[in-house]
Amino acid sequence: MSGSGDRAKDALLVFTPSGKRGHFPVGTPILQAARSLGVDIDSVCGGRAICGRCQVQLSEGTFAKHGVTSTADHLSPVSATEQRYAEKRALPPGRRLSCQARLMGDVVIDVPPESQVHKQVVRKRAEVRAIALDPVTRLYYVEVAEPDMHNPSGDLERLHAALAAQWNVTGLEADLHVVQALQKALRAGQWTVTVAVHHGNPPEGNRIVAVWPGFHDQIFGIACDIGSTTIAAHLCDLSTGEVVASAGLMNPQIRFGEDLMSRVSYVMMNPGGDAEMTAAVRDAVNTLLVQVTRDAGIDTSLVLEAVFVGNPIMHHLFLGIDPVELGGAPFALATSGAVNLRARELGLRMNHGARVYVLPCIAGHVGADAAAVVLSEGPHLQDENWLIVDVGTNAEIVLGNRQRLLACSSPTGPAFEGAQISSGQRAAPGAIERIRIDPETLEPRFRVIGCDLWSDEPGFDAAVETTGVTGICGSGIIEAVAEMFLAGIVSQDGVIEGALAARTPRIEPQGRTFSYLIKDGEPEIRITQNDIRQIQLAKAALYAGARLLMDTMGIDQVDRITLAGAFGSHIDVKHAMVLGMIPDCRLERVSSAGNAAGTGARIALLNGGARREIETVVGRIEKIETALEPRFQEHFVAAMAFPHKTAPYPHLAQVVALPASKAPSREDDGRTGRRRRSLDRRGV
Amino acid sequence: MSGSGDRAKDALLVFTPSGKRGHFPVGTPILQAARSLGVDIDSVCGGRAICGRCQVQLSEGTFAKHGVTSTADHLSPVSATEQRYAEKRALPPGRRLSCQARLMGDVVIDVPPESQVHKQVVRKRAEVRAIALDPVTRLYYVEVAEPDMHNPSGDLERLHAALAAQWNVTGLEADLHVVQALQKALRAGQWTVTVAVHHGNPPEGNRIVAVWPGFHDQIFGIACDIGSTTIAAHLCDLSTGEVVASAGLMNPQIRFGEDLMSRVSYVMMNPGGDAEMTAAVRDAVNTLLVQVTRDAGIDTSLVLEAVFVGNPIMHHLFLGIDPVELGGAPFALATSGAVNLRARELGLRMNHGARVYVLPCIAGHVGADAAAVVLSEGPHLQDENWLIVDVGTNAEIVLGNRQRLLACSSPTGPAFEGAQISSGQRAAPGAIERIRIDPETLEPRFRVIGCDLWSDEPGFDAAVETTGVTGICGSGIIEAVAEMFLAGIVSQDGVIEGALAARTPRIEPQGRTFSYLIKDGEPEIRITQNDIRQIQLAKAALYAGARLLMDTMGIDQVDRITLAGAFGSHIDVKHAMVLGMIPDCRLERVSSAGNAAGTGARIALLNGGARREIETVVGRIEKIETALEPRFQEHFVAAMAFPHKTAPYPHLAQVVALPASKAPSREDDGRTGRRRRSLDRRGV
Repeated sequence: MSGSGDRAKDALLVFTPSGKRGHFPVGTPILQAARSLGVDIDSVCGGRAICGRCQVQLSEGTFAKHGVTSTADHLSPVSATEQRYAEKRALPPGRRLSCQARLMGDVVIDVPPESQVHKQVVRKRAEVRAIALDPVTRLYYVEVAEPDMHNPSGDLERLHAALAAQWNVTGLEADLHVVQALQKALRAGQWTVTVAVHHGNPPEGNRIVAVWPGFHDQIFGIACDIGSTTIAAHLCDLSTGEVVASAGLMNPQIRFGEDLMSRVSYVMMNPGGDAEMTAAVRDAVNTLLVQVTRDAGIDTSLVLEAVFVGNPIMHHLFLGIDPVELGGAPFALATSGAVNLRARELGLRMNHGARVYVLPCIAGHVGADAAAVVLSEGPHLQDENWLIVDVGTNAEIVLGNRQRLLACSSPTGPAFEGAQISSGQRAAPGAIERIRIDPETLEPRFRVIGCDLWSDEPGFDAAVETTGVTGICGSGIIEAVAEMFLAGIVSQDGVIEGALAARTPRIEPQGRTFSYLIKDGEPEIRITQNDIRQIQLAKAALYAGARLLMDTMGIDQVDRITLAGAFGSHIDVKHAMVLGMIPDCRLERVSSAGNAAGTGARIALLNGGARREIETVVGRIEKIETALEPRFQEHFVAAMAFPHKTAPYPHLAQVVALPASKAPSREDDGRTGRRRRSLDRRGV
Repeated sequence: MSGSGDRAKDALLVFTPSGKRGHFPVGTPILQAARSLGVDIDSVCGGRAICGRCQVQLSEGTFAKHGVTSTADHLSPVSATEQRYAEKRALPPGRRLSCQARLMGDVVIDVPPESQVHKQVVRKRAEVRAIALDPVTRLYYVEVAEPDMHNPSGDLERLHAALAAQWNVTGLEADLHVVQALQKALRAGQWTVTVAVHHGNPPEGNRIVAVWPGFHDQIFGIACDIGSTTIAAHLCDLSTGEVVASAGLMNPQIRFGEDLMSRVSYVMMNPGGDAEMTAAVRDAVNTLLVQVTRDAGIDTSLVLEAVFVGNPIMHHLFLGIDPVELGGAPFALATSGAVNLRARELGLRMNHGARVYVLPCIAGHVGADAAAVVLSEGPHLQDENWLIVDVGTNAEIVLGNRQRLLACSSPTGPAFEGAQISSGQRAAPGAIERIRIDPETLEPRFRVIGCDLWSDEPGFDAAVETTGVTGICGSGIIEAVAEMFLAGIVSQDGVIEGALAARTPRIEPQGRTFSYLIKDGEPEIRITQNDIRQIQLAKAALYAGARLLMDTMGIDQVDRITLAGAFGSHIDVKHAMVLGMIPDCRLERVSSAGNAAGTGARIALLNGGARREIETVVGRIEKIETALEPRFQEHFVAAMAFPHKTAPYPHLAQVVALPASKAPSREDDGRTGRRRRSLDRRGV
């Protein structure tokens, strides 16, 4: 860019949408001018008309705002090189390769989003920030000098020199397998290669992790959420940020124990059991790697990056760390920091030089999955008091804003997932997921997963003939209990009103208590008094955790609530609030985030800065240990009632007519005492 | 250390031998005062009276020089802790633990050499610099905070905090296996552990590579010289620098080809042959690792560092790099830089976190072994023109001084190692290694390896009865040919004088030429005309390489010559000069350095700064490619004669009566022509 000197041979160049502008000598390549202005234009080939990443669009016309008339002849004609590219790879009309097009007169040049290095990756949900693409592993195409006997040097050293001269990338070391492959790649590529450089943070630094002969421009990464029950993987194109394939499967560790604590117990009882579970989860990840790469039609060797999230016990077992310390107080993590590794240290089927990043854990019960939820939602970037709840066997709860973030874990137990519920089952075709109870007739109607009809609609029986109606899943139980409460079948303190047996045969005595029949036949599906208790225990734990964070924050009301996780995305917000699972809030400010942990993993995959961001944020999150807080027990007891013994639900009351309040029975206190003792076992 | 303030409660502390001194408040621990003065005192336990590395000695008496009277009561009495140490580990009389002894009055404290971190490691040869101990991997004993549920953090993060607070060591990352082992180690050590930290250079950085419960103070390293023929390993104690065990074995790659080029040919002819040879050499190194650790009575897991040197082809094969590029022009190395690796990337039986360092190569024929020779001898640290020759199948030649260093490789062929010599054999018991020929009678007498008697001494026959006299090794051939020349049996141009058959039956015709019989019987040992030619070709190549470097340096005379390598340490300097293997030089300035490559590897093992030093020095060595220099051929032709066709040997002539000169015969020129063609094959 010329300054105030002779502008007779200079021309004005304006880039849109950035508005960056400057005068440059006639003949300057557009890409070179863009770089000197700091305009973000991508390139893998380094200006050789090979990669086509640097495409720009000439804006023709007179732009008063910019004081410029921009015409086609103000750019150099399409060069022979550019023509060859256009013939080979197709250049959309009006597009030019900015490495080839030269400035001939004043022009306005538009940089389309896909030509930016730091392009924005669109997310499905409008309320969350876009992901800025800035991957840690990048490709560089280089022309390497041939060896010279007069000035002997290693092929690697000449590659380093080329990267420094052509890309200004310095201070690199190379993985051994790259050194082993380099000589053949250089000769096969006639002294051109593309290398993948992993730009790690100190102390890891920048390393050449892969090499291909000639020009190569496809690399991928995988974002993986290792849940206790399911493992999900998303394969992303690291140059566009797009998800090109996704797959999930059951966590094979289930054969060692359904829930987390039973897996820890397995290790305690079976020396070496942790190694078995480590092998099982890594095998599963490899299965997913093979599946997503096959679905995308690529080789696993093109996967250069992986990001993993999971709860602390999954985190430890995946990394090959004995999880037994997490099974009892003081619940010490082996490491809470982010973990940087080579994929082959974990035996993963990726490129030999692929790198792995595992997000930091927040505390012994609040894992890398919770950190990923924070990264996905960004409570640390806004001013409202935002409550984020990731519901699972343990609920991970985050509350806060730009100034302050709190986190805790609450032992909800598996009831929300349909376990320990008499007719409970996993969310699968045939499971009841929606239910409504007529407060007059006390008759239920319901919908099952895999069928769009309600049970009282014509054709329902035929539609569910293959799946049957097999049980009730987590979200179905929430609705069932909430509807029973709203219909007066269940009292505020959680007792099924036996007196209603006079009104409907669906209320039936079972020992000293009563149950409510949803469906007869085979299987019979009913909600028992014990089921209600399980839900009360779970929701009270969840509420108490959230309330504890609100106390610590010094607030009585949250501004916004997000339910994360597969379960969170299926439950009906209103029913959840009727049960008092979550505190009162304006209903339109309560939403679900879907698999926010998986999204957080994908953000960390696509943006190196996001890794530093979440490491910093996790470092300043205040960790609250519910087991150490006497108030947690108080909140827990008070939260057994529907929606709560004392807390008001003004926003909920505006949309739902809640039954009148009455005092909790003695029986609840007895059960609460039992729960209090079992809390120490953390969700067993 | 107090400044100019109130000295009423201060006392003067003088350290010897450094002379560092200061006033400190009464009660200051001696170790703490030493640190503030920058006095080098070792400690692994960090001042907890566990390791005993910080021992000092009170100097009693009046020291006018220091203006101090130093008495025993000027130090605090032996503490209970110190007493316990003394009982458990034995403290020599007069020794105190400087972490426990406190300043009570003016004292002079002597720091014995073994208490210094950067202690000097004594070398056998007086003319070379001592090795300053400063290993890259160090031990740190730390007390780690127990986990606290109120302030949850990972065990690793508390370890990092302890290292920062107790040792000021920060910016660390930990190897995965350390994270996996940490929790059990911390609990077994009751919240104390010793960690090994590898202080790598950027971009590798500092990493925790090993962890032991409680206090641990023994780690080792191995320095390994991978030769084409033999592999030698030295196990060193990284806290003292001492060699605690050494072992060597034949390079098992010999089964793929005796010399380097036949091994490269094997790869060319057998795809995958490089992998076989890589496996063979790594297996051999593992065998040596097991052997030296067993000899030292330690576990292989205590070996934390390894340094390797070798010629370029050994370097490549050991690292798993196809060496074929080194088999032909332009002889491109895959990498010429130093290589930093984890030992397990090479499958070595060491600690799981052990690190490997491979010295840089100088050029395609001048390897990491030559770099190690430079590091051992230090020509870059002095002003004389020093010629260093490492004789093997290729001779690696270095010439220079502080200002300028030159290096080349010269294809001597295997004659110096006894190969392609009619009665030649490897240096082994039974091989003739010394020989003298009476110029009057032309009768030889000789000595064989494994026997101290000369063949004309009484009892010789009995002494060699088990081994026999089996052949003639490299140093024996040098002496035989030199003695034949000095006795007039061989002319200056290398022809065995058939006319002498009249004087002795030892001169016998063989076809058109003659041979000289050293020993009859079984086997008959003789020097043939062809043997003389092989030696002429080898020594002419060696001389021509040295002379080429002298030309480039612009000198006619070197100040000093060192012969490195196993062969170099066995040959007689005078005989080597009589043959004209090396240029003329004052004989007392010609010496052998033994296994200088192995010593260089040991220096790099014990001193991290030495690694940076040799990397820098190698970068500025000027590499001369003999095959590209027309003068090399001229020098080669002229050097066929004994000692040389034209170059004078004034220093040699002062001690040896050389036969009168005469012109070379036509036959030499013919043979030289053949040699010239074969030079391109680089030592085949």
